Amino acid sequence: MGIVLGPNQYGKAENRVVRIYRETPRHEIHDLNVSSALRGDFDDAHIAGDQKQVLPTDTQKNTVFAFAKSEEVDQIEDFALTLARHFVDDIEPVTGSRIEIEEYAWDRIEIDGDRHDHSFVRRGRDVRTTVVTVDGTGADQQAWVVSGLRDLVVLKSTGSEFAGFLRDEFTTLAETHDRVMSTSLTVRWRYSVVAADWRTSYDEIRATLLERFATVHSLALQQTLYEMGKTVLERQHDVAEIRLSAPNIHHFVVDLERFGLDNPGEVFHAADRPYGLIQVAVLRDDGPDPGRAWEG
Amino acid sequence: MGIVLGPNQYGKAENRVVRIYRETPRHEIHDLNVSSALRGDFDDAHIAGDQKQVLPTDTQKNTVFAFAKSEEVDQIEDFALTLARHFVDDIEPVTGSRIEIEEYAWDRIEIDGDRHDHSFVRRGRDVRTTVVTVDGTGADQQAWVVSGLRDLVVLKSTGSEFAGFLRDEFTTLAETHDRVMSTSLTVRWRYSVVAADWRTSYDEIRATLLERFATVHSLALQQTLYEMGKTVLERQHDVAEIRLSAPNIHHFVVDLERFGLDNPGEVFHAADRPYGLIQVAVLRDDGPDPGRAWEG
Amino acid sequence: MGIVLGPNQYGKAENRVVRIYRETPRHEIHDLNVSSALRGDFDDAHIAGDQKQVLPTDTQKNTVFAFAKSEEVDQIEDFALTLARHFVDDIEPVTGSRIEIEEYAWDRIEIDGDRHDHSFVRRGRDVRTTVVTVDGTGADQQAWVVSGLRDLVVLKSTGSEFAGFLRDEFTTLAETHDRVMSTSLTVRWRYSVVAADWRTSYDEIRATLLERFATVHSLALQQTLYEMGKTVLERQHDVAEIRLSAPNIHHFVVDLERFGLDNPGEVFHAADRPYGLIQVAVLRDDGPDPGRAWEG
Amino acid sequence: MGIVLGPNQYGKAENRVVRIYRETPRHEIHDLNVSSALRGDFDDAHIAGDQKQVLPTDTQKNTVFAFAKSEEVDQIEDFALTLARHFVDDIEPVTGSRIEIEEYAWDRIEIDGDRHDHSFVRRGRDVRTTVVTVDGTGADQQAWVVSGLRDLVVLKSTGSEFAGFLRDEFTTLAETHDRVMSTSLTVRWRYSVVAADWRTSYDEIRATLLERFATVHSLALQQTLYEMGKTVLERQHDVAEIRLSAPNIHHFVVDLERFGLDNPGEVFHAADRPYGLIQVAVLRDDGPDPGRAWEG
Repeated sequence: MGIVLGPNQYGKAENRVVRIYRETPRHEIHDLNVSSALRGDFDDAHIAGDQKQVLPTDTQKNTVFAFAKSEEVDQIEDFALTLARHFVDDIEPVTGSRIEIEEYAWDRIEIDGDRHDHSFVRRGRDVRTTVVTVDGTGADQQAWVVSGLRDLVVLKSTGSEFAGFLRDEFTTLAETHDRVMSTSLTVRWRYSVVAADWRTSYDEIRATLLERFATVHSLALQQTLYEMGKTVLERQHDVAEIRLSAPNIHHFVVDLERFGLDNPGEVFHAADRPYGLIQVAVLRDDGPDPGRAWEG
Repeated sequence: MGIVLGPNQYGKAENRVVRIYRETPRHEIHDLNVSSALRGDFDDAHIAGDQKQVLPTDTQKNTVFAFAKSEEVDQIEDFALTLARHFVDDIEPVTGSRIEIEEYAWDRIEIDGDRHDHSFVRRGRDVRTTVVTVDGTGADQQAWVVSGLRDLVVLKSTGSEFAGFLRDEFTTLAETHDRVMSTSLTVRWRYSVVAADWRTSYDEIRATLLERFATVHSLALQQTLYEMGKTVLERQHDVAEIRLSAPNIHHFVVDLERFGLDNPGEVFHAADRPYGLIQVAVLRDDGPDPGRAWEG
Repeated sequence: MGIVLGPNQYGKAENRVVRIYRETPRHEIHDLNVSSALRGDFDDAHIAGDQKQVLPTDTQKNTVFAFAKSEEVDQIEDFALTLARHFVDDIEPVTGSRIEIEEYAWDRIEIDGDRHDHSFVRRGRDVRTTVVTVDGTGADQQAWVVSGLRDLVVLKSTGSEFAGFLRDEFTTLAETHDRVMSTSLTVRWRYSVVAADWRTSYDEIRATLLERFATVHSLALQQTLYEMGKTVLERQHDVAEIRLSAPNIHHFVVDLERFGLDNPGEVFHAADRPYGLIQVAVLRDDGPDPGRAWEG
Repeated sequence: MGIVLGPNQYGKAENRVVRIYRETPRHEIHDLNVSSALRGDFDDAHIAGDQKQVLPTDTQKNTVFAFAKSEEVDQIEDFALTLARHFVDDIEPVTGSRIEIEEYAWDRIEIDGDRHDHSFVRRGRDVRTTVVTVDGTGADQQAWVVSGLRDLVVLKSTGSEFAGFLRDEFTTLAETHDRVMSTSLTVRWRYSVVAADWRTSYDEIRATLLERFATVHSLALQQTLYEMGKTVLERQHDVAEIRLSAPNIHHFVVDLERFGLDNPGEVFHAADRPYGLIQVAVLRDDGPDPGRAWEG
C-alpha cells in the first residue's frame, strides 16, 4: 500500500481587475474578478517542498494585471483563453490551467437622457461568469469554455402550480394551482466552440432565460428550468449543454383569516431557509464530450 | 448610588413582506423588509419579568402582515407611519415606536419590448429605505420621517483629483490630478414634513445624487459628497437635512513599468480593505429640530 | 435660509493589523481591525475642495501600522487611546478623533497537552471591541472608552418562559413555560475611567454575561438582559453604563404529532428571519455624563 | 440531433434542525444544517410537468425533522446514512440520494469550573461536515461517506519559507525564509467504510491536521497540506482519500523603514483579495474507487 499525491492545482484567486479604456473622452469600463489555477507536475513541490517548478501565485497575479493592459479584455471568454493558453504554452512545467472570470456590469449615469462619458453606476445584481480550461500542450491541446451567470433573481406572481405530487406519510403540503414562484438563478452553459461572439451569445441566453421563465406556465420549477434550458439549446447552436441550479425561494401565503381578512395570493412571507434546490442539466445527445470542462 | 434601567426598545426585525396587487392581470409587486420597535414603560418586564405590558414581537409581526393587506403599502413612508401610529395610539403601554422599512425594486421582464404582466426581475443593487419615528400620544404626538438609500455603487474614471493635502511624518501618498473615484453610497435624508409624494421625492433625490456625482469635478470625496447633499437640499424643500456615508473604494493604479508597460490610468486593482470612510451631514440652518428622528 | 455643513468626520476604516511579538521563541499574536476617524474644522475641504487641513486617510493607515511597532498593542483600549490622542494632539486641524478596534482571539495549537510556541488556531466566534473618543485639546481634552463584544452566541435549552403578556386582536402566540432561548449578543459598556486593567475587566464581564445568561431563570429576554447588565455594573465599579442588543433567535418546536410523534421540547427549527430584537441599557444613576462616548 | 434531459436532482436545502436530548437534567444539544437531494427517474416532471413521481421538498423537510426525533442524530454520518437510505429504499421512484449535514459545536457555559447542565455557548468557528451518497436499490445499493470540516483558521508566525521558485518575466516576488503562513482550511476525507466511530475519527483527524500544520517546517503551503493529508492517511486506516483546499491568507510585512522603524516580521497587513488558493488530494493507491462519493 502506498500513499500518493492526487489531483492538485494552485493559483491566485479573485484578482479584482478594473480596466478603463480612455482613448476617447467616452471611457469604457471593464470590472473583472479573475482567478487562475495551474496544473502540471508539481510532485516535488508537494512531496519535497521544492519550488523550482512552481510559478508563484504572485507572478500569476502580475500576469493577470499585465495582460489587462497588453491584451484585450472586452470579451471575458477571450481574455480567459489568452491567459489560460499563456500559462500552458509559456511556462514549462504547466500542462493545464483553469481561468475563472466574473464580470460586474456598469451603466453610464444618465442625466436628462444623456449617458455620461466617464461616470458609471453598478447595474443589476446578476454577474456574468466564465470558466476556461486548457489541457495539454502542442497539437494535443484542448480547450473548453463554460460561461454563465449567477444571482439573477426572478419572480412570477401567478402562472405557477404545484399539484399531483407523490405522497407518503410525511407529506402535509397542500396542492396549489396558483402560487408565487421565485428563484435566484445560477446558470452555466458549455460551448462546443472556442471562438464566438461571446457577448451576443450571453445577451441572447440571458434574454431567453428571462423570457421562458416569464412565459412558460409552470407546473413545477423542474419543468420551468428544463424549458428554459431547452430553448437556449434550440436557439444557440454553439451551446452543447446547459446546467441550471435554482433555489426555490419560498413565498408562503400568510394566514390572515385569523384576523378577519382574506388573502387570495396577496400577502406573502418570503422565507430564507430551508429552501428547495433544483439542479438540472439539458444537453444535446450528439454534442462533444465535456472533457475537463466542468472540473472545479 | 443605584443601578437603573436606561433607554430600551424591543420589536420584530426583518419581516420579509411581499405584497402583490392583482386586481387586474397587470400585477404590482412590493417587496419589503419591515422592522418594528416599541418604546414605553417596560420597567416591569425588565426588572420583575412581568410581561403584562408587553405586546409580543410575534404580535408585531402579525400586525405587519395584516396591515400589508388592510392598508396601503405603495409608499413605504406612509405604510411605516400607519404602523408606527397604530402601535402608539392603540397599544396602551406604548408611548413611542420606530418602524424601519427597506424596499427592494423589481422590473417587469421585457420580451420583445413588452413588459410582462406578472413576471419580474430584481432591479439594481441599491435599496430604498425609511425610518419613521413616532413619539408621544394625543395632541403631543410627534413624528419624523428619515428616508434614504444604500448600496448605490458609483465610479468615475476621471474628473477626480486629490492634492494639496496636509503632510506629516507618516505621509507617503503621492498627489494626483486624475484618479478613479468610486464609492458605495449610504444616504439618509430627514424630511421636515410627514406627508409628501415620497416616491417622487425619492426618485428626484436619487437622480440628483447620481447627477452631481457625475458632474462635479472632484477635488476630494468630501467636496463631492457636500455638493451632492447641498444640491439635494436646494431642490427638495421638504428635506431639512441629509447625511452621506461613503467608503472610498480605492482603485490603485497597478505598476506595470516593471513589465515594460505604461499604465496611464488604465489598469487598476480594486481593493477591499482598508478603505477611506467619509461621513458628512448637510443641513438647513433654519430647519426644524431633529428630535428623535435619528435615534437607532 | 442657508444650507450649511453639519457634523462630519473622515478616516481609514478596517486596517487589518497583525502584530507578532517574537522576542522569545514563544511568540505572541495580536490580530486587530483598526478604524480611525478625525474631526475638526474641515469646512474648506467640503466647501472649497481645499485639502490643506486634511491629513489623508492613507497617512492615518500608515500611522496605525507604524504605531503597531512603536507603541504597545497588548490592550486595545490603550492602543486606541494612544492613536486617538496622537491625532488630536499632533495634527493641528484635528480637534477630535474616534478610534474603533476589533480584536480576534487566537489559541495556541495544542499537541499532546503542550501549547505550541508559534502556531495558532482562531478561537471562538465572538469579537472583542473598543471605541475610544477623544475630544478637545489641551486642558479641556476629554476621552471616553466604550468597550464590548459581539457575536457571542448562547442558548439555553430550558429555564426560559414567556407568558402573561399583553394581547390584542393580532395576538396568536401561545404562552410557554419551557422554551429554548438563544441569542447572539452585542454588548458595549462605557467606562468611567480612561486607565484600567482592560483585559481583566473584559474577561470578567464576558464571564459575568455568560454566567447570568445561564443562571437567571428567564421570564423574558428583556429580564435576562437586564439581569446580565445589572450584575456587570454591580461587579465592575469602573463601568458606568452597559448596553445590550440581542436578537431573539427563535427556535420553534416542530409539530410532529402529524407524524405520530410527540415532541416535548426536543426537535426545533432554528429560524433566520424575522427575529425579535431587544435593546436595553442599564446604568448607574450617579455615573458621569456620556458626553460623546456613544457617537458613531 | 436531439435535446435531452441530463443529470438532475432536487431536494430541500439547509434545514436548520436543533435536537435537544433532555432525558436527564444534563441536556445534550445537536445543532445541524441538513440538506437532502433525490435522484431517480424524474423525466416526466421535467418534460411534461407531471409530479406523480416527485416527493415534494416540503415532505423531505418533514422527514428530516421527524427523523431527528425517531432516529439517532448523535453521529451526523449515521443520521445522514439513515436519511439517505430511507429515501432510496422507501420512496419508489428514488434511486439515489445525497444528504449533506453541517454540525455546529456548542460548549457548556462554565461557571467557577462547573459546566452548566442546559446553558451553552457556540464553540469555535470551524464546522464539521458530512456528505453521504447512496446509489441504487436492493443488493446493488452502494453508499459513500465523505466527512470533513471547514473554516478552521490557522496561522504560524514563523517556520515557513518560500524560495527557490520558478521565475518568468512577470516574477517580482522576493524570496523569504521566514514568513507568516495562515489559511482557512476546508478539508474533506472519503471513508472506505460505511460504519465507524465517526466522532473519534473526526476528533483525531482535526487534531492531526492542527498538529502537522504546527510542526511541519513549511517550504510552501503545498508541502504543508500534503504532509497534513499524508499523516491523516497514515493514522486513519478507514480513510481512502483526503482533499484539502486552502486559501493562502497573505500577511504582508509592512514597510516601516520609511518611518525610521525596522520591522523584522512583527507588523503585518492581513490582506483580503487576491489570495493564493491551493487544492491538493492525497490518497491510497489501493483504495476503493470513489464512485459517486464526490459528486455535487
